[in-house]
This record gives sequence, C-alpha cells and structure tokens, in this order.
Amino acid sequence: MKLSEIDTPAVLIDVDRAEANLERFQAYADSHKLAVRPHIKTHKLPRFAKRQVELGAVGITCQKIGEAEVMADAGLKDIFLPYNIIGKSKLDRLVALNKRVQLAVTADSEATVNGLAAAFRKQPKSLIVLVECDTGAGRCGVQSPQEAVALAKLIEASEGLKFAGFMTYPKNGGISENEAFLSAAKQLALDAGLDPRIISNGGSPDMWRAHEVTTATEHRPGTYIYMDRFQVAKGVGSFDDCALTVLATIVSRPTGNRAIIDAGSKSLTSDTLGMEGFGRIVEYPDAVITSLSEEHGTIDLSACGNKPQIGERVRIIPNHACVVSNLFDKVNLISGDEVVEIADVAARGRVD
Amino acid sequence: MKLSEIDTPAVLIDVDRAEANLERFQAYADSHKLAVRPHIKTHKLPRFAKRQVELGAVGITCQKIGEAEVMADAGLKDIFLPYNIIGKSKLDRLVALNKRVQLAVTADSEATVNGLAAAFRKQPKSLIVLVECDTGAGRCGVQSPQEAVALAKLIEASEGLKFAGFMTYPKNGGISENEAFLSAAKQLALDAGLDPRIISNGGSPDMWRAHEVTTATEHRPGTYIYMDRFQVAKGVGSFDDCALTVLATIVSRPTGNRAIIDAGSKSLTSDTLGMEGFGRIVEYPDAVITSLSEEHGTIDLSACGNKPQIGERVRIIPNHACVVSNLFDKVNLISGDEVVEIADVAARGRVD
Repeated sequence: MKLSEIDTPAVLIDVDRAEANLERFQAYADSHKLAVRPHIKTHKLPRFAKRQVELGAVGITCQKIGEAEVMADAGLKDIFLPYNIIGKSKLDRLVALNKRVQLAVTADSEATVNGLAAAFRKQPKSLIVLVECDTGAGRCGVQSPQEAVALAKLIEASEGLKFAGFMTYPKNGGISENEAFLSAAKQLALDAGLDPRIISNGGSPDMWRAHEVTTATEHRPGTYIYMDRFQVAKGVGSFDDCALTVLATIVSRPTGNRAIIDAGSKSLTSDTLGMEGFGRIVEYPDAVITSLSEEHGTIDLSACGNKPQIGERVRIIPNHACVVSNLFDKVNLISGDEVVEIADVAARGRVD
Repeated sequence: MKLSEIDTPAVLIDVDRAEANLERFQAYADSHKLAVRPHIKTHKLPRFAKRQVELGAVGITCQKIGEAEVMADAGLKDIFLPYNIIGKSKLDRLVALNKRVQLAVTADSEATVNGLAAAFRKQPKSLIVLVECDTGAGRCGVQSPQEAVALAKLIEASEGLKFAGFMTYPKNGGISENEAFLSAAKQLALDAGLDPRIISNGGSPDMWRAHEVTTATEHRPGTYIYMDRFQVAKGVGSFDDCALTVLATIVSRPTGNRAIIDAGSKSLTSDTLGMEGFGRIVEYPDAVITSLSEEHGTIDLSACGNKPQIGERVRIIPNHACVVSNLFDKVNLISGDEVVEIADVAARGRVD
C-alpha cells in the first residue's frame, strides 16, 4: 500500500526515523553507562516497547496501570509505573500485575505508602517502591531530600513494600538543582542504611545532558522515539528526525492567504507548549497553523511564496507527538512512501 | 452501581441535566419557529442523537463521514455534514451514505463542487448541497453573498447535485454581520431563480440569540446538551446546567497550596478557549487548575479556605466538553449518585 492510498487525517510513523532515534539515544546512554527505561506514553505500541528493550533498555515506563496491563499482555517483563496508585480498584490491579511482571511504582506521601502497604502486606511478592522527588518541576514529589528519606524509611519499614531509590521528572533545563537534590537524597539514604539502588531521571528535552545528572542510574525518555516540533525547538533533534506526522488534506482556500485542513484539535490537539502555532507543515514550512477547531485547522499562508491548492495533501509535525498518539485508534507505519503496516494503538485511551 | 464505585479519571454525564438542556433549547427554538439540527460532535452517542430528534430536532449534524456512518447505523435518518468532502475514498462513502439516509453536505469552492458532481453524476439519487459562507468566523466559506450565489448556480447546474441553501458557522457575537450576509445571499439566490430553502446557522455561544438571525431557518447547537465552562463564561447557562464532568482523584499534595489530580490533558485536553485554567472543580470553585501534563493536573489551592486531602475525589467541569467526549471510550451516565449505564462513545475517534 502506498502513502497516497491513505485517507486523511491520519498518523504516519516513519519506522526508519523511529529506529534511528531509538538507536541514537541508546548508544549515548550506553556510552555513559546510563540505563534507559523508555516511557511508552509516546507511542503506546507494544512493538516499539519490545524494540526499545531489544536495543538495550532495562525495561519500560508506563504512566497508567491500564497501559502497563497492555504491555504486560504483550510480553513486556519489567515495568516502572511512576505514579501514586490510590484506591481499592487500582491497588487490586496492581497486586495482580506485580504477580506477572517485575514491577515498581512511586510514592510521594505517607497516604500513598500506607495504601500500598495495606494492599501488599499479605502478598508473597513485595512491591518495589521509589520515592518521587520534586526537584524543580513543581508537579508531584516530596519537597526536600530530608522528606525523601523520611518516606524511604516508611517504605522500608512497611511489610510488603521494598524501597529501591528515588525518581524525578525534572524541570526542563534544571540540571544542577536536579543533581543537587538527588545526590543529597542518595547520601542521606545511604547514611540511614538504605539502598537507593535506582535513581531514575526523566524527560526528552534534556536527554542529551542526562549524563550531567551524575547521581542518576537510569533515564526515562519518551518523545525521543518520534520527536516533535517542541523537541526540535529545544534542540533535541532536527525536523528530519521527526518520525510522527499527521497527513491532512487542504479542504478549503477561502482567501488568497488562508487555507483550511481537515486536521483540527481532534488530530493535532491544542497543545502549544508555549510555541506559536499548532504544528509545522513539512511542505510549507513558512505557513502558520494559527488556530484549530475540532475538525478544521486554519493556516496563514502570508509568508509562503508557493501556496497549496484544494485537494493537496500535506504532512504536519505536531507540537507534541505523545498526545497525538492518544487520539488515533490506528497509526500507519511507513518506510519512504510505502505503508508497511497499519497498527492498532494498543494502549490508547487507557485512562486509568 | 454508585458513583463511588467508578474508578478515576472518568467522564460522568448527568442525564437529567442533559435532558433539561435539550428540552430548554428545543422549546426556545419552537417558540421562534426555528428548526433545530443538533451537532452530535459534543456527545457522539446515538442515544442522545435519537433523543434530540424525539424532542423535535429535524435531523442531526455530523462533522465527519465516519460519525455520520455510526449515526446512520444507529437508525438516524436525516444527517447534515457541513464539510467539504474531498477525495475518492470519502466520495465513495458519501455515495453509499446518500443511499440510506437523507443527506446534505456543504461546499465552498468550485473544486469541491466539481468533485461532488463527478461522484454523483451517474447516481439515481441527487446529493443535496448547501454553500458554506464565511460570515465572519474566518474559517471555511465563500467570502461574499455574490460568491455564494455563483457557487449555488454551479451546484444547481451540476448533474447529480441539488442546491438547497446556505450554511454558516458564525463568529461568536457576530449576529448582525451574519444576518446581513445570509439575507443578501438569500435575496440574490431568489433573484437568480434558485430555491435557498435551508439557511443553516450554528453554534452554542449565541444560541439564545439564534432568532435574531431572522434569515436562518435552522440552528445547529452542539455543546448545549452538556454545557461547559466556556459556555457558562459566555452566559449560555450556569454551572448547575453542566451535565458533563470529569471525576478525578487527588493523588498528591506536595505543598500546602498544591494538589495534583489524576486527570491531565489526556482527560481534560489543553483547550483553554482563552480562559485561565483548565476547568472548574465543583467542590473547590476557588481552586485553579494551573497546568496539565498528560496524566497530571496541577492545582493551585491558594484561594481555597478548605483544601482537599489525598484520595479525595472531585468533579471537574471542563473548559470544552466536546473534546473530552473524544478522549474516552466509555462515559458513565448518571442520575444523582446512581450510575444508570456505562455507554460506549460510538462515534469517538471517527477521524475521517
């Protein structure tokens, strides 16, 4: 099947670029003796999770139990779920999942630890728990190395749980504060007789500086497999590295400088990540996608010498690839102009 | 099943509020002798489409052929698809759909009309086509009443097509310019011997002023069934009218004034529609959802006297209900605290 036979809007994944992106970061991490634990939220496809492990990843990262269940069903054996798992229903699923894979979770509060402990106290296999640290991003996480170690002690003292280290999703660019927090937490843990054997750092924007966080033992990049307009803006790769594009059709040219495509927020999402516009049109890099409604994208062609015609198809590099993966039931795996396979996005929409 | 048994994040639809919202607008439209043709993009559920028709809607509106196919399969008989349908694959599906329902589409260019004509020339049943007009919103549509009538003539002259009137998705608040465009187009069409029997206006934000566009024969509200934070901001209804909420759990309280919920952009979307924050927390109306990542929502509690605890569940009125419907495979239909049914979002993810 040729690219020209695919109806629009559709997601295209250039498998050659994806493979190159995976290999490039794995080689970098290997050279720094840093373990790679990719976040599958970006692709949600078992095939790529398996390929990441084949290339040397120590395991994968999922953000939801539902995603982890899909990946376990597909044969993935080592899964990190860096999330506070709360409530009976999810804890029951966590117990079941821990029986069939090597599993680890995070906690950032006594409430979360106590819930985990209540669920795992009577289980023959302990649950591995890392302490989530807020090293500057301002999301989840304990606020200081002292708090981190206090929680580590509670985990270690809880029957059914096993403390294994610290985890963070750091602030973009916050290398030094991240390193300072993690190294202090590690030292305090060692001083307390604990074994913080895993120090898990994350994020694609700073992934080429991952080795500067010398305390980290592993890195969890997600978007690196596909790249996107935001990662390019951050200097992580070039537009030629972007493996995920949205194929769209020009459906209207109401004025000389306006074009409308059949891809709106239901295909590209409203994520701007602080940038102007909602994606880069590969064939018309000077065009600006100025607004999206659900099924229409409005494009300003003022800066374009050449302008597209109605019926013409274009490819768009989205601002944020991960959220696009979550909108489509299927993606088209391509190599050049050939569609090599249409794949179900198996972990799409696993909200809980 | 009780609300308390639902895992989070989850979409709740208060069926009593939805019913009241539908009845209220239908009564308003009836009193103004304005036909209602609801846009199903908001709910994507055949049951509500059928209920809208039972209450008096003349038919429904879909934005994608895939949505229309789902609704036709469910027994809906009169479907308007206000979109430029382009390309062989979609035109083939359009031909098939026109055989089994009363169908109408829009066009805003000769290219679209010529494509439709080529597909329907040999068909026994003509396709009904309206001319899409840009009356101020700056999206699709011909730019003047003169252009509108020129295209109407082309449609009427095309074998296999039947001109039936004009359609617009207007600029919010642009009542007078909308009316001026449509009335001029109608008069020019009548002068040209055409029959513009349908003048289709749309949008929920100005729906209580729909009767002021006196040339319009029908209105296509979408969000009115669920309402959302944006519609409340526009004065269309109150927070007590909002039928769709996202149920979420507080999973972290890293600081005194920060809470994290398990609903991020994968549940609420990044749509701000120009507003501050990413939704309204029903139980904590003074809280501000300041940022979303895919699986986390970050909440500023500075303005809250009472503050939520870890494990507590909250309900969020999203900024934009329609895009939330597209993210969940299932929604929970509730009445009070009772879950009356878990419904498949049948037309979710129908991208083409």
